[in-house]
Amino acid sequence: MRLAHGRRGVFAPRKMPKPINLRRVFSGKRVLVTGGLGFIGSNLVRELVALGARVSVVDSLVPAYGGNRRNLAGLASRVKIHIADVRDWPRLPSLVRGQDFLFNLAGQTSHMDSMTDPITDLDINGRAQLAILEACRLHNPAIRIVFASTRQIYGKPDYLPVDESHPLRPVDVNGINKIAGESFHLLYSRVHGIASTALRLTNTIGPRMRIKDARQTFVGVWIRRLLEGQPIEVWGGEQLRDFTYVDDAVEAFLLAAARPEGIGGVFNLGGPPPVSLRKLAETLVTLNGVGQFTVREFPSDRKKIDIGDYFADGRLIARKLGWKPRTDLRTALARTLDYYRGELRHYV
Amino acid sequence: MRLAHGRRGVFAPRKMPKPINLRRVFSGKRVLVTGGLGFIGSNLVRELVALGARVSVVDSLVPAYGGNRRNLAGLASRVKIHIADVRDWPRLPSLVRGQDFLFNLAGQTSHMDSMTDPITDLDINGRAQLAILEACRLHNPAIRIVFASTRQIYGKPDYLPVDESHPLRPVDVNGINKIAGESFHLLYSRVHGIASTALRLTNTIGPRMRIKDARQTFVGVWIRRLLEGQPIEVWGGEQLRDFTYVDDAVEAFLLAAARPEGIGGVFNLGGPPPVSLRKLAETLVTLNGVGQFTVREFPSDRKKIDIGDYFADGRLIARKLGWKPRTDLRTALARTLDYYRGELRHYV
Repeated sequence: MRLAHGRRGVFAPRKMPKPINLRRVFSGKRVLVTGGLGFIGSNLVRELVALGARVSVVDSLVPAYGGNRRNLAGLASRVKIHIADVRDWPRLPSLVRGQDFLFNLAGQTSHMDSMTDPITDLDINGRAQLAILEACRLHNPAIRIVFASTRQIYGKPDYLPVDESHPLRPVDVNGINKIAGESFHLLYSRVHGIASTALRLTNTIGPRMRIKDARQTFVGVWIRRLLEGQPIEVWGGEQLRDFTYVDDAVEAFLLAAARPEGIGGVFNLGGPPPVSLRKLAETLVTLNGVGQFTVREFPSDRKKIDIGDYFADGRLIARKLGWKPRTDLRTALARTLDYYRGELRHYV
Repeated sequence: MRLAHGRRGVFAPRKMPKPINLRRVFSGKRVLVTGGLGFIGSNLVRELVALGARVSVVDSLVPAYGGNRRNLAGLASRVKIHIADVRDWPRLPSLVRGQDFLFNLAGQTSHMDSMTDPITDLDINGRAQLAILEACRLHNPAIRIVFASTRQIYGKPDYLPVDESHPLRPVDVNGINKIAGESFHLLYSRVHGIASTALRLTNTIGPRMRIKDARQTFVGVWIRRLLEGQPIEVWGGEQLRDFTYVDDAVEAFLLAAARPEGIGGVFNLGGPPPVSLRKLAETLVTLNGVGQFTVREFPSDRKKIDIGDYFADGRLIARKLGWKPRTDLRTALARTLDYYRGELRHYV
C-alpha cells in the first residue's frame, strides 16, 4: 500500500487546543497505574511523580511481560508498588478506591503468545479489564481512566494513514481481545458515566522497553542484539511503520486524562514520518557505530498475522487533545541505545 | 431512520445457488449442538434427527437461559444429551472429538443481564467460545462449525437495511462479547483452518422460545402475557424490527454448514418485511382473538442500550448460501401462539 502524495505532515494541524498546565492537573492527585513497572507505565509513573502526583502501581511481574523492578529504580520511597495481577479480582476494589486517575496499561502484548495461549490473552486483555471497570463502577465511579489500546485492532489497513474510523479487522487473538477491552471502557463511559479515554498506540520505543525478546516490540530485541554484537534479523523489510517515542506517548496519556474533550473518545497515537523496517535497522546500526542486519523471509506462522504497512493519522488527537509527537526517530533511537548501553544487564 | 423507497424485497435476488440435498449432507453424520435444549438449538436438533444425523447436545440448563428439557420431548432415545456448561473446559475435548459438525448456539442472550453481570456474559459468549475453538483446533481440526452471532453487534444502525459491512458499534456488554465470539470463529477459520461460518441472527420467534420473561426475546413474554390474559406492555412502539421464524433460521444453519461458500463468512439473517412493535402487538392480539396491549415509555436503563429501528439486508446469504425466509410474519406468530396454547405449562 502506498502513501498518498502530500499526506505526510498530517500530525500538525493548524488549530490545536490551548496548552494545559499538567502540574496543576496532577499535583497532589491520587493516581493508579496498572502495568506500572512496565515500559510505558514506568515512564508515565516517573513523569507523574515529577508532576507531584501520589502514585500507586499495580504490576504482576509475570516474567514474559514488560514489568521490571529496575524501571522504577530510585522511586521506591515515592511510589506505592503493589505486586498484583489484574486477573485477581478480589484485590481490585481496594486498589481503585480513592484514586482520582487510573492509567490502565496492564496487558499481554505478544501477538504470537496470543495465538498459542489465547485464553490467557483474553483473561488479561478482556476479562480483567471488565473486572477493573466493574470495580470502578461499584467503588469509585468518579475516577478518570485512560486505557492503552493498540493499532493492532485495525488489522491490515485498507488505506494509509489509518484514522480512527478505519474498520476494525483484527488479525490475531490479541487484536480481538484488545477491541473488547477498549469497547468495555467506552461503554462504561457512555452508559455508566465512568469517564474513559482510549489511546490506540502504534509501535512505542524508548528506555525501559522489554528487550529480552520480541514480545513487546521487535525493536527491543533488535537493540539487544545490536548491543550484544549479534546481527539484527529483519523480517520482510519493506513494511512501513511509525514509531512513537515513549516520552511523547507519556504526554499523550497525561493529556488524555487531563482534557475533558477526551472523555468517551478513541485516539490514534502516531509518530514522526513512517520508515521501512530495513531503514530502521540501517539507522540503528549507523547510530550504534557498529553492527549488521540480515533480511529474511517472514516465518510462516508470523506471516499469517502480519498487518503489512501501517502508520497512523494523528489529526484527531492533535485537534482534540493538543498532542503531537515531538521526538524525531533518530533522536528516539539514539536515546534508547544510550539508555541500554548503561542498563543492558538489568534487561536481559 | 426511514426505509429507503423501493428497498423492500431485498431478500429475493435473481440469482440463488443451486438447491442442495440436506439429507445427503447430514444423514449418518455426527453433529454436536451446543445450547441444544434451547430455542433455536432444539428446533435445529429436531430437523437434524429428521435428516438422519447422529446428534449430541450440550446444554447447561442454567435456569435464566433458554434450555428446557421439554424442547426435546420425545427425542430422548435418539439424541445424546450432555448436561454440561461450555464454561467447563475439561469436558470440551471429549465433546468435540469425532464430530463432523458443530452448531455452536450456547450463549447468554439477555442484554440487561449482560449489563448487571458482565463477567458471566463474557465467560459464556467470549471465553467459552475460545475454549471450544481451542478444543477443536487441538482435538478435531476437520470439524465444520456454524456460530450463532447476533445483529446486536451493529448497535444503532447508520442506515437500513443493515448489510454485513455496516460498522460494529455494540451498545451493551453482550454486543461486545458476541463480537469477540464471532471474531474468534472467523480467525480460527482463517488462521487455523477450522472451517467456520457466523450467522448474525435478528429477532427469531417460534415454538420452544423462552416465554417466561424477556431474557431471550420480548416476543416471548408478550405471548405468555397474552395467553395468561394479561396486557402486553409495548415500550416505545414505533421501532421497526424484522423477525425470522425459527424453521427458517434452522434452514439457514443447515445451509451454512452444508455449503463450502460459507466458510470464513458472516451472514445476516433477515425476515419478511419489518414491522413496528406496535403493529406486532396488534397482530398478536388479533391472532389470539382476545387481549390488549399498552404502549409506554422506555424504562431509562433499557433506553440507554436500545438500538432503535433495525432490519437486515439479506442479499448476501441469499446469493451465497441460497437462503431466504419462507414464512410470513402472520404465519410465524400464529404457529407460535398455537404451540404455546398447548404447551404453556411447560414454559412458565
